[in-house]
Amino acid sequence: MDNHNIDHDREDRIGFQEVVYGESKSIEDLSHILENFISKDKNVLITKLQKEKAAIFLKKYKDAMYDEPSGIFILKPLKELEDKKEVVIISAGTSDIHVTNEVYYTLKYMGVSSVKLNDIGVAGIHRLMSKIEFLKPFKILIVIAGFEGALPTVIGGLLPQPIIAVPTDVGYGVAKGGHVALNAMLSSCANGISVVNINNGYGAAMSAVRILNLIKNKND
Amino acid sequence: MDNHNIDHDREDRIGFQEVVYGESKSIEDLSHILENFISKDKNVLITKLQKEKAAIFLKKYKDAMYDEPSGIFILKPLKELEDKKEVVIISAGTSDIHVTNEVYYTLKYMGVSSVKLNDIGVAGIHRLMSKIEFLKPFKILIVIAGFEGALPTVIGGLLPQPIIAVPTDVGYGVAKGGHVALNAMLSSCANGISVVNINNGYGAAMSAVRILNLIKNKND
Amino acid sequence: MDNHNIDHDREDRIGFQEVVYGESKSIEDLSHILENFISKDKNVLITKLQKEKAAIFLKKYKDAMYDEPSGIFILKPLKELEDKKEVVIISAGTSDIHVTNEVYYTLKYMGVSSVKLNDIGVAGIHRLMSKIEFLKPFKILIVIAGFEGALPTVIGGLLPQPIIAVPTDVGYGVAKGGHVALNAMLSSCANGISVVNINNGYGAAMSAVRILNLIKNKND
Amino acid sequence: MDNHNIDHDREDRIGFQEVVYGESKSIEDLSHILENFISKDKNVLITKLQKEKAAIFLKKYKDAMYDEPSGIFILKPLKELEDKKEVVIISAGTSDIHVTNEVYYTLKYMGVSSVKLNDIGVAGIHRLMSKIEFLKPFKILIVIAGFEGALPTVIGGLLPQPIIAVPTDVGYGVAKGGHVALNAMLSSCANGISVVNINNGYGAAMSAVRILNLIKNKND
Amino acid sequence: MDNHNIDHDREDRIGFQEVVYGESKSIEDLSHILENFISKDKNVLITKLQKEKAAIFLKKYKDAMYDEPSGIFILKPLKELEDKKEVVIISAGTSDIHVTNEVYYTLKYMGVSSVKLNDIGVAGIHRLMSKIEFLKPFKILIVIAGFEGALPTVIGGLLPQPIIAVPTDVGYGVAKGGHVALNAMLSSCANGISVVNINNGYGAAMSAVRILNLIKNKND
Amino acid sequence: MDNHNIDHDREDRIGFQEVVYGESKSIEDLSHILENFISKDKNVLITKLQKEKAAIFLKKYKDAMYDEPSGIFILKPLKELEDKKEVVIISAGTSDIHVTNEVYYTLKYMGVSSVKLNDIGVAGIHRLMSKIEFLKPFKILIVIAGFEGALPTVIGGLLPQPIIAVPTDVGYGVAKGGHVALNAMLSSCANGISVVNINNGYGAAMSAVRILNLIKNKND
Amino acid sequence: MDNHNIDHDREDRIGFQEVVYGESKSIEDLSHILENFISKDKNVLITKLQKEKAAIFLKKYKDAMYDEPSGIFILKPLKELEDKKEVVIISAGTSDIHVTNEVYYTLKYMGVSSVKLNDIGVAGIHRLMSKIEFLKPFKILIVIAGFEGALPTVIGGLLPQPIIAVPTDVGYGVAKGGHVALNAMLSSCANGISVVNINNGYGAAMSAVRILNLIKNKND
Amino acid sequence: MDNHNIDHDREDRIGFQEVVYGESKSIEDLSHILENFISKDKNVLITKLQKEKAAIFLKKYKDAMYDEPSGIFILKPLKELEDKKEVVIISAGTSDIHVTNEVYYTLKYMGVSSVKLNDIGVAGIHRLMSKIEFLKPFKILIVIAGFEGALPTVIGGLLPQPIIAVPTDVGYGVAKGGHVALNAMLSSCANGISVVNINNGYGAAMSAVRILNLIKNKND
Repeated sequence: MDNHNIDHDREDRIGFQEVVYGESKSIEDLSHILENFISKDKNVLITKLQKEKAAIFLKKYKDAMYDEPSGIFILKPLKELEDKKEVVIISAGTSDIHVTNEVYYTLKYMGVSSVKLNDIGVAGIHRLMSKIEFLKPFKILIVIAGFEGALPTVIGGLLPQPIIAVPTDVGYGVAKGGHVALNAMLSSCANGISVVNINNGYGAAMSAVRILNLIKNKND
Repeated sequence: MDNHNIDHDREDRIGFQEVVYGESKSIEDLSHILENFISKDKNVLITKLQKEKAAIFLKKYKDAMYDEPSGIFILKPLKELEDKKEVVIISAGTSDIHVTNEVYYTLKYMGVSSVKLNDIGVAGIHRLMSKIEFLKPFKILIVIAGFEGALPTVIGGLLPQPIIAVPTDVGYGVAKGGHVALNAMLSSCANGISVVNINNGYGAAMSAVRILNLIKNKND
Repeated sequence: MDNHNIDHDREDRIGFQEVVYGESKSIEDLSHILENFISKDKNVLITKLQKEKAAIFLKKYKDAMYDEPSGIFILKPLKELEDKKEVVIISAGTSDIHVTNEVYYTLKYMGVSSVKLNDIGVAGIHRLMSKIEFLKPFKILIVIAGFEGALPTVIGGLLPQPIIAVPTDVGYGVAKGGHVALNAMLSSCANGISVVNINNGYGAAMSAVRILNLIKNKND
Repeated sequence: MDNHNIDHDREDRIGFQEVVYGESKSIEDLSHILENFISKDKNVLITKLQKEKAAIFLKKYKDAMYDEPSGIFILKPLKELEDKKEVVIISAGTSDIHVTNEVYYTLKYMGVSSVKLNDIGVAGIHRLMSKIEFLKPFKILIVIAGFEGALPTVIGGLLPQPIIAVPTDVGYGVAKGGHVALNAMLSSCANGISVVNINNGYGAAMSAVRILNLIKNKND
Repeated sequence: MDNHNIDHDREDRIGFQEVVYGESKSIEDLSHILENFISKDKNVLITKLQKEKAAIFLKKYKDAMYDEPSGIFILKPLKELEDKKEVVIISAGTSDIHVTNEVYYTLKYMGVSSVKLNDIGVAGIHRLMSKIEFLKPFKILIVIAGFEGALPTVIGGLLPQPIIAVPTDVGYGVAKGGHVALNAMLSSCANGISVVNINNGYGAAMSAVRILNLIKNKND
Repeated sequence: MDNHNIDHDREDRIGFQEVVYGESKSIEDLSHILENFISKDKNVLITKLQKEKAAIFLKKYKDAMYDEPSGIFILKPLKELEDKKEVVIISAGTSDIHVTNEVYYTLKYMGVSSVKLNDIGVAGIHRLMSKIEFLKPFKILIVIAGFEGALPTVIGGLLPQPIIAVPTDVGYGVAKGGHVALNAMLSSCANGISVVNINNGYGAAMSAVRILNLIKNKND
Repeated sequence: MDNHNIDHDREDRIGFQEVVYGESKSIEDLSHILENFISKDKNVLITKLQKEKAAIFLKKYKDAMYDEPSGIFILKPLKELEDKKEVVIISAGTSDIHVTNEVYYTLKYMGVSSVKLNDIGVAGIHRLMSKIEFLKPFKILIVIAGFEGALPTVIGGLLPQPIIAVPTDVGYGVAKGGHVALNAMLSSCANGISVVNINNGYGAAMSAVRILNLIKNKND
Repeated sequence: MDNHNIDHDREDRIGFQEVVYGESKSIEDLSHILENFISKDKNVLITKLQKEKAAIFLKKYKDAMYDEPSGIFILKPLKELEDKKEVVIISAGTSDIHVTNEVYYTLKYMGVSSVKLNDIGVAGIHRLMSKIEFLKPFKILIVIAGFEGALPTVIGGLLPQPIIAVPTDVGYGVAKGGHVALNAMLSSCANGISVVNINNGYGAAMSAVRILNLIKNKND
């Protein structure tokens, strides 16, 4: 019996395809999966793919792209998107780039435009305050932070849009692994912030996609 | 200096009022807060208010309502809402009623109609399967579960709407306190599920409100 | 052999007396301790004393005071202090009063004036912003918060004074017990915030006393 | 005194031999153990043996086999088994192969036939539903999952056989290390699921062997 | 919409009925559930029902039985069973009676005979050794222990039957809540022990029922 | 079958009798156990017995003694012992009395004399320094502390005797439950300190008894 | 949009510049940040920079300094400071040097003189006692310890100055990662000790800077 | 100021010298420490020294010995000891050798003879039973186990000597890091077992030395 059982009907059912979690799969298993998608003439997104594995596939699939900080691998080229003020990705620090990029490329793969706004930590609150007008037109705010994870709380008190908070594993001591940021986001005093797993930029992007699909369906 | 500093401008800023977390406030402090809202001729929602405290305020404010399982207290009567298929509240078990009701009354307070669907645990998956058509028209799914918290994952693979998962503290042994349900929801293999704190029905409702406001603005 | 061994020399050594942790001592042991202080004609501070125990001692010692939210008991009346802008006690919510008052009465017992500023949570950041000028003249900022504990971080980016952060046990779900607030404060991206144990208002006050003594000695 | 004290009587006592946990033993100690078994003309199973150590023994013992994903090492060739519908090994994802294979080879070593069914995660519940008839004839279901570990719960509500659930360490963030899957399985709302340690494919297989021996004895 | 959604088809599907977790359900909800079962002329098992709630139902349903240590409530009388050496329930200490009885009554409700063997802790290993012959004829061993939870490991090295280990919450300090016993059982060096949640006597019994059903089917 | 299985041979085997852990046993079970000991004309020690249960047995057994802080119950009067400088029990604070007394009465029951030295916390190190000469003649030091549990470390650097460290559950915030004191004692930089479970005064006393028996045997 | 958003106004606002957390930033990002500071003719401090990254920058910026144990990198030479008895850095063991040096170089960068006193663990309390007179003239005590973290408690009972305690990750078993030292410091029975995150030498230094600035302002 | 401050008086004070924890010290720091001991013509024991560091010192100090599994380094040759039945070191598995050897060499360094008895796990209880007579003459039992850590409990019920239990980090899943073994030992139902930190063979040996010194003093 084969090792893989790809859920190719998922798109019909919920409007988007299964993607592939690359971190703990062998090169052999990933190769079979890629060939399976190619045989169906479909594009595929692999998340959290290590650099060494990516190098092998990049050599084989010349059109593929790979983003090293996030480990995102996409088999076929994506079309460029114009900025429709759909999603803004706000991060507390430059160190959160592995998650910021996972959000960005997942959204792009799903056909959603986004803008990145980096290094807006709450220890320098004026940096955030000066961006409030810039943030207002976006439909959805994805807010990324490690360490004490306070950024979504402050934004949640200032702006009315849906906020998806993503904790990252940036930090040391008690903050190591990202659990403090996660728990701080879950405990937020601000209204209506929802949270995804540590480093789960992919999940945050998909949560935004579900919301944006709702609006689109509304308008059909 | 006074003990309270109510954020009455919040409504202008983000479209909804500050509510009051009742669990750890004294009767004296809550009385001052209630009088402050009355003096401004505003309604107010208090969450997680204990039965004994509620009894005192129900005696004083004859129009107020109180839901014992959830601890929700609302100062002034709310108008009834017709079902606009906005939110469906799905719970895994009858024991989750304290959270189900917190979602229900918060939504009602915010002017959002919702329907409750109880006791749809994944150990009897056919109960869920038979409800899929019923669930399709709703804009947002709020999914509540204690113990192993698997319900949002299964729903996430079957339906395309935004899903807000709420873990509850129902369970014993390793499940005590709700951390297993929370972590299972955060770890979900299903796409795009976002999560709030254990028992945070209020937060899930507000997250839905933010999404619904987005659609409304879209249509203005 | 006697049960107690009070460190009466501590004052000579480090400039302030031993105080008594009341929570887990029996009425009998506390009675002996109080009589010991009375026999030396000294005042004494008891922390975290339960209401039922306090009632017994208040009946016996007519001059004593007791603050129920914090559980602070002081044997002899304290002299009133004029506000010398020494310490400001900032709390994120009304629910933190048990800690706010422990700081306040400990400082007063140590002869240090303080001002309380309640309900300044970061989910309504403008409440904090409007107080910045008010806060500037104080020598030391003691910042108290439960839930996600973000307040000290924001203040730390806005003001240059020594900041002592006190996490409280206000919160539920992951925030239960105060560990999230504690860890968020320890992980703070803001510079030079120091932290004490959950609910340790007494410790924060004593940390401020050590700093203020340093200034006083400087001027001798 | 020698470093080893192999329990060669175990087979008489409980019907199966001691096996060897390879992960934390030195090459020297493992060599002695292997020679001890060879001197008694017995086969031996080593679990969780690292690739580098295995390479040394494979060079020395030409008949030995080694499975890299699981780290299973078996000294002497096993006879092929016909499928008697004894055990089916169901896994949620391709990434769980290290555990799936540990179950498979341990069963084979014990003379029990099994079939593997991979990549049947609950986020695509129809994949499971379509396999129910296939699963019915098997005597025992071993169900393997990482991340949120929901698969045994869903299967437990659909099928009546003994179910042994095996959590794996596949996952990241809160799911890192496999504790979420373990706890979700222990908290399962489904009836009569029993659980083994994270990644303990060996233990799950032995638990199945104990049950199958019971049936065999029954028929003697 | 009603609060309950009982899975009455479960018996057809997996051979045994849904039971009711009583601990976190209100008297009102439990009354509806009981009436529902009565209306279908079925018996029902409620687990972990508190004494105060049970008193109300015992007054109303004269034939019902209630076991206070375990909180087991059974609506209709069960027939007595002869000892067929099906299950033996071994407990490490007298303090584990709340779990021992939950196993015993659940098995009886399911029509399975069992024998209890109490107070066989490993700190007095001769107590266990003297019972080995007594234990040999039983088909399944359910082994219950709190504190360090070592009993299943020792039994696992002495007897060949299926062993279901149940950790209990008996203990203090690091053993409080039963997590040490649980983890010790999961880490057991003995072969093929499977484990259920802390205090989950019900789950252990159902796991035994699944195994016994397998034997019965075998013989049909 | 009876609920109890007392290990009456233990005394022959290891030189001391089984004692009874009272906390989680019912009055009925404890009554049976007490009668069993009386029937064999033996004394018995019950640990951690709650006040309400003790009251019942004190009424029935007029010679019995009960120490409320520790919950120690002893059926028959013990003979007074002269101080042979066997064990000194050093505690960091008056609040640790529940553990101090458990050590004291267990030792007395075992025929070992001890002296208590209370309230010797390391925050007033001179209190300890002034007692060093007093401590030198004792054979064994049992050192009890809650909060940060630093006392055994300091003593371990000053005195050469065997040191048994007992953490207590006195403390709040991170120190709640006694885990910080336990872990600090286990991590001690001082040489050769051994540790027992939180609040396990009984275990510390028995550890001392084992050592003292060794000396006695030496001299036989 | 650029990846960086440096808070260059922080100095005006709170009296000291933003520094750069180097551990999780890429070489590319750090290069941009360094060039940004150079373009403004400012010095910059990078913390926790790995050796391999530092080597690249040391080659490029010939005036820069790098301390390997702590990972401190400073772009431009600092002027030597005379000892003004401002800060003493006391460490429990030689192994804590990575934190000791982070404190030392941060203070130097901020223009504060300090003295290091290493290897003063409490297991040899006389080493501390003999240094008390040496310690008295310093304004602030920064106390660093791993393992059981008892040193700040003992010092806190002996000296009156502000004490900033820094737990380190030196230790193994329960002490691994530094959580025991952290929690012991937070639980300290000594008065007025404040604590920073594990290994956060930088934060401790900045906390001292805030206090010293207070004194300076006092004197202006 | 120098980095080291060796406690050379410890021997006078408590009868044995300071040893050196090697794991987190640099080669440079260790070199200074070794030279310091050499300059005083003393031997020195270094614990947990990594292989790479040891290689450097073995090259330099030709008489030194190094045990790779435990990381023990001893500067000068030790004299051989005859077996005086002082200490027996019992380990549950071959994998525990890193701890077994740390105990063995520390005892030898302290002049105490010991015997090792390996691979006596409780899953094969007869292995232990057959050794009881062998174990009786020893003064002290040091019992080492990873995984579920049950061995000390079983031994504690069979033998009367002082028992020092040492948990090891051998295990995976919930047993990873050794915390299960530690907690199981602390929770032991057997009487008078005392425990040291995970992998702390050195501490167990020193605890034995303290006891043996007591006997020796007794006989002086």
